Amino acid sequence: MIDRRFRLGMVGGGQGAFFGAVHRRVAVMTQRFELVAGALSGDPARALASAAELHLSPERAYADFSAMAAAEAAREDGIDLVAIVTPNHLHAPACRAFLAAGISVMCDKPLTVTLDEALAVEQAAKASNALFGVTYTNAGFDMVREARAIVQSGELGTIRVVRVQFPQEWLATAAEAEGNKQAEWRTDPKRSGAGSLGDIGTHAFHLAEFVSGLRCASVSAEVDSFVAGRQVDDNVSVQLRFENGARGSLWASQIAIGQTNGLRIEVYGDKASLGWGVEEANILQFCPLGGQRVVIDRASHGTLFKGHMPPGHAQGFVEALSQLYDDMAGQLEARLSGVPAAPNALLLPGIEDGVRGMRFIDAALRSGARDGGWAAL
Amino acid sequence: MIDRRFRLGMVGGGQGAFFGAVHRRVAVMTQRFELVAGALSGDPARALASAAELHLSPERAYADFSAMAAAEAAREDGIDLVAIVTPNHLHAPACRAFLAAGISVMCDKPLTVTLDEALAVEQAAKASNALFGVTYTNAGFDMVREARAIVQSGELGTIRVVRVQFPQEWLATAAEAEGNKQAEWRTDPKRSGAGSLGDIGTHAFHLAEFVSGLRCASVSAEVDSFVAGRQVDDNVSVQLRFENGARGSLWASQIAIGQTNGLRIEVYGDKASLGWGVEEANILQFCPLGGQRVVIDRASHGTLFKGHMPPGHAQGFVEALSQLYDDMAGQLEARLSGVPAAPNALLLPGIEDGVRGMRFIDAALRSGARDGGWAAL
Amino acid sequence: MIDRRFRLGMVGGGQGAFFGAVHRRVAVMTQRFELVAGALSGDPARALASAAELHLSPERAYADFSAMAAAEAAREDGIDLVAIVTPNHLHAPACRAFLAAGISVMCDKPLTVTLDEALAVEQAAKASNALFGVTYTNAGFDMVREARAIVQSGELGTIRVVRVQFPQEWLATAAEAEGNKQAEWRTDPKRSGAGSLGDIGTHAFHLAEFVSGLRCASVSAEVDSFVAGRQVDDNVSVQLRFENGARGSLWASQIAIGQTNGLRIEVYGDKASLGWGVEEANILQFCPLGGQRVVIDRASHGTLFKGHMPPGHAQGFVEALSQLYDDMAGQLEARLSGVPAAPNALLLPGIEDGVRGMRFIDAALRSGARDGGWAAL
Amino acid sequence: MIDRRFRLGMVGGGQGAFFGAVHRRVAVMTQRFELVAGALSGDPARALASAAELHLSPERAYADFSAMAAAEAAREDGIDLVAIVTPNHLHAPACRAFLAAGISVMCDKPLTVTLDEALAVEQAAKASNALFGVTYTNAGFDMVREARAIVQSGELGTIRVVRVQFPQEWLATAAEAEGNKQAEWRTDPKRSGAGSLGDIGTHAFHLAEFVSGLRCASVSAEVDSFVAGRQVDDNVSVQLRFENGARGSLWASQIAIGQTNGLRIEVYGDKASLGWGVEEANILQFCPLGGQRVVIDRASHGTLFKGHMPPGHAQGFVEALSQLYDDMAGQLEARLSGVPAAPNALLLPGIEDGVRGMRFIDAALRSGARDGGWAAL
Repeated sequence: MIDRRFRLGMVGGGQGAFFGAVHRRVAVMTQRFELVAGALSGDPARALASAAELHLSPERAYADFSAMAAAEAAREDGIDLVAIVTPNHLHAPACRAFLAAGISVMCDKPLTVTLDEALAVEQAAKASNALFGVTYTNAGFDMVREARAIVQSGELGTIRVVRVQFPQEWLATAAEAEGNKQAEWRTDPKRSGAGSLGDIGTHAFHLAEFVSGLRCASVSAEVDSFVAGRQVDDNVSVQLRFENGARGSLWASQIAIGQTNGLRIEVYGDKASLGWGVEEANILQFCPLGGQRVVIDRASHGTLFKGHMPPGHAQGFVEALSQLYDDMAGQLEARLSGVPAAPNALLLPGIEDGVRGMRFIDAALRSGARDGGWAAL
Repeated sequence: MIDRRFRLGMVGGGQGAFFGAVHRRVAVMTQRFELVAGALSGDPARALASAAELHLSPERAYADFSAMAAAEAAREDGIDLVAIVTPNHLHAPACRAFLAAGISVMCDKPLTVTLDEALAVEQAAKASNALFGVTYTNAGFDMVREARAIVQSGELGTIRVVRVQFPQEWLATAAEAEGNKQAEWRTDPKRSGAGSLGDIGTHAFHLAEFVSGLRCASVSAEVDSFVAGRQVDDNVSVQLRFENGARGSLWASQIAIGQTNGLRIEVYGDKASLGWGVEEANILQFCPLGGQRVVIDRASHGTLFKGHMPPGHAQGFVEALSQLYDDMAGQLEARLSGVPAAPNALLLPGIEDGVRGMRFIDAALRSGARDGGWAAL
Repeated sequence: MIDRRFRLGMVGGGQGAFFGAVHRRVAVMTQRFELVAGALSGDPARALASAAELHLSPERAYADFSAMAAAEAAREDGIDLVAIVTPNHLHAPACRAFLAAGISVMCDKPLTVTLDEALAVEQAAKASNALFGVTYTNAGFDMVREARAIVQSGELGTIRVVRVQFPQEWLATAAEAEGNKQAEWRTDPKRSGAGSLGDIGTHAFHLAEFVSGLRCASVSAEVDSFVAGRQVDDNVSVQLRFENGARGSLWASQIAIGQTNGLRIEVYGDKASLGWGVEEANILQFCPLGGQRVVIDRASHGTLFKGHMPPGHAQGFVEALSQLYDDMAGQLEARLSGVPAAPNALLLPGIEDGVRGMRFIDAALRSGARDGGWAAL
Repeated sequence: MIDRRFRLGMVGGGQGAFFGAVHRRVAVMTQRFELVAGALSGDPARALASAAELHLSPERAYADFSAMAAAEAAREDGIDLVAIVTPNHLHAPACRAFLAAGISVMCDKPLTVTLDEALAVEQAAKASNALFGVTYTNAGFDMVREARAIVQSGELGTIRVVRVQFPQEWLATAAEAEGNKQAEWRTDPKRSGAGSLGDIGTHAFHLAEFVSGLRCASVSAEVDSFVAGRQVDDNVSVQLRFENGARGSLWASQIAIGQTNGLRIEVYGDKASLGWGVEEANILQFCPLGGQRVVIDRASHGTLFKGHMPPGHAQGFVEALSQLYDDMAGQLEARLSGVPAAPNALLLPGIEDGVRGMRFIDAALRSGARDGGWAAL
């Protein structure tokens, strides 16, 4: 094992930001990273004040991510990884700045605002030898990885139907007009791109492909906005066709009153089915043909996947996100040490997954604009 | 109250038939009907043997439903109601025979095999002064009626999204090729019409309109058959547009391994949402805007609807079906007595509901044939 | 099969009574009984009016159960069975009157008000050749019978722990002082005997012995009454010791706010466990050693027990009660025909089960009076 | 805020130990502690090797906790807090060593092996001005704190009944004889004290008092051991009497096949009830009188308690434990800064809670030895 902690930088996540603090918490929780540098805000004064609060050395408190990329790349003890946790419209330029400087990137989802931006980031990533991760958090849950492993083992047979949904309530009213900062940028097309499609639809889409191992070929989408004055979609219902002929559906809604965070996937094969939902993240439903329904937790199916904690000691959101930083640490170490990373570390969603999400948004919007006509990804 | 039991006849439901016996059980359970006549099988010998087992008078054991309609109409003590529980292809001719004879009809769903047949039955019903009921069983559950009453009370505000699904496992393999009689006729297009669309899709569709009070204007459907050799659809995913602008989706599948009878509806308004599923038929989820989630049973919301039993004494399938016979008894009595029926009795699905179901099947098949292009109902 | 319906009489269940109407409904639902006689109320005028409403022949509308027993026993077409659905204090004299007349009895639970009365009824039953059933309704659920069959099959191994509970909310306040008729007699020690112990504790106790197949040897009980002015227990927590050394606990409460009808049993063996609750009456949880948890419905374990309906068509309360009348019909027919009854019919709780319930109440009250000292049954 | 991280030491948790690693992870996750010293194993070589793996300075890698207490107390930069994560029998001597040295302690539960030891630790804690925390992990869950706040707000009225259970499967067989290290020491009375009573019963007992705000006055216990050869209890059922007259029950079992980690509490008042279980840790059931049942998550009742994460982003086990370290950091900072700690930080279970747990074990064992006679705490 490498005899030091990896050095982490952060873009975004200054005072008042929410998810940046969570990313710092989960990164240190792995005991493999220490935060040493940041361009924590686009506002230079706030960037400096935020850095001071986090005990960053003043010389590594940057007012600007481009300056940060350049300076860190030039240091002997420059950062190994940058976490990009800004609103979406800054993802692409920030990613490109660090990739160009040869610094590995962990970027929040959706990857960018437009598919074109995403393709440019992909090109930059391919041209760089830096590593790239996208924080589709749900891919970090033990039972999601177990679900994927079960599918890969063939226990479901040929997959016929994939159903995934992600309903939430929090934008059922015009929260963006009532001073909710999160709502403001997430419903501003310039900063967010799409609405529910990008914010939660990409989570659902990634989960569908990650668990099923299938690739979606085309979509037919109903893209709607129910709240008066809203500039982005807030309820999207999508038919999916997969390359192997499987059918699917995806529902993403931020106006679903009563739904807190109802991400759920069901995969039906010709031999068995499985189901998982983030609100019961520590169990899987597994049903072989013939009527039996089995609840799998880490106690009962442990041959497929070993998690960190004994069954009954539930994983929560921060552990799932932390798993992605663990995976990145594993990949960073593999590159430094020359010893291949553990297979688990390779489950970290990468640049291709980020681009797939943007292809999904793009195709869904195109389909929606053509009254649900099929659009290829 | 009318001082006698209503006289019930039955078409179908002879020896070996399953649902006919259930209909007899639920009809007598109301204590308002007695079975006195039947054309219980298309095979005359079996019709007579079946009638003898049920202690029917031999003169009222008919080998043929047309003969039965004529003879019963001519009797002083002729039947008040006929229950039609044959495979689907016999619904239309049987309905028309009894309607022509002025005898009220309780017909199983889907109403007919084709929309044209359904329209002909509708015309016959309008031309007759007989009553007409369709046994969409789920409309008999107390909590489904409560859900409808909640929507009508305005507690949900304007409805935005309706989601309904009815997944089952039982046709995940080619059961029709393995001697399963139920599977045989239900997958034979001549006897059933559509597959999962007719068998369970119509239940889901009726539930969506019954609870929401909305009318579906058009559909975009994926209509698939996954089991080799199957001649009808076994998995259907439909986008719904309602006349008020609400959006919806409907999934009917008979290949969903692990799903026993997963009928479930969710209705999202701009003030609240509600959810109900037949596998937890005695409760409703009700969620007002703001994050609270409430479980309603008959204890907590009793002002809206009074059921037969105290909360905690669960209603099952037979009681739901029995409610429909109770409703029909209420309507028959109202006509005989001239006293208006209780409002509850009018919730019995009628000929229009039967026709709506056939319009739904027809539109979904048309849409499916055009790669999901929208089809009006 | 006997070529007629069995003739049923009823004691109690007149106008305004609740459960008598349910018993009539479930009896006719079996299609094996017809109601022909009744002493429906202790008030002669009300008894006659109630009988008229039910179309009973006036000569078989009795004002008094003793007269009814004598008259029916003397008739050629006298009743085959009497259902006793009065408040508890009338159970013993009514049972004895019909048993003495040689007429079979279906009696509501608890069997009597005191253990002494119960023993006298037992003696009368043994001296008579009439049949005797006790309507512990839960014994009529398919999945309760399945649970019993699973235990008997040995799949659980040696049973170590049995836990059963039956919490309700409905007496959390002094409902008996606010005009609730059900609450009045059920909290009046002269008419009911014990409170929650008799009303619901006996259900829980019967379920524990019925499913586990074990016999309870002794109990240690906390017997409390929380509502001011209440004359009977409303919350009882009991430790159970079974003859085989297994341990158990039983909780019966009618002050458990939020609990509608929370009857639930869990049985833990050294090889597996099972769990069942009446609010999810159509499934069993079954857990073999090793961490797997399986949901059993009638689809998945059908070799052990065949119910009436396909899986997913839920049984409710009235079907469970109706099963007990079916069982009684099976026993009556076996006696008339000389052909042994189907094994299922013998699962009808009988006089011994009625007496066991009274032994449980008696022992719990004795233990409670001695600060929880152990009391033998 | 204090301008540095607190310095943390650890006793136990060396190579191969499980929970020590979890404690390190949750402590750093708070971003308020850094690990700087340890006596990680009783085996000096293993202690040193473990320390090296964790990058501890060699001079602060101690072979012995007494030496560590002395040396750290003498350093300018000595530890602020020691976490004691050894088997139970070492808790008392380790606690006393650090308390005597004036160093604050975070000790795993149960506090000690015997009540006498616990009282000695309590005396030492009172004589010291060091802080003391006990890691009853469940007290760290947001919704447990919310439950406590709801009770304190009076929404439940007078509490009548408290029911708590903690069933597990993992010792259903003689795991201690099959090489399971965790099972070995936990079933060895010299190292663990009691069996299920100490390992999980104390968790349940603390939860009961923490949420209800009541104090248990006396217990009547069935204390059993079902696995052949086992030297400690593995199934315990306890009746509880609280000082205010409320009744309760507690079940702790490690032979409950099918139960992973079934800790659950229900509190019934005369105005409302609430329920919480660790396997659904992010919701509360709340039921006001009158039949309504409400699911509370952090979205719906946020006035009472603000957690770290938005609703739907579930807290898991490590976050609950981490909350306790956050609380301790808050208390440490308050003492250093003179600014009172936030109320939340005072919810950290302290020495009194540790002693209460030992009083519970002691009373339950005394009662069990006297056939369930009541024993005062």
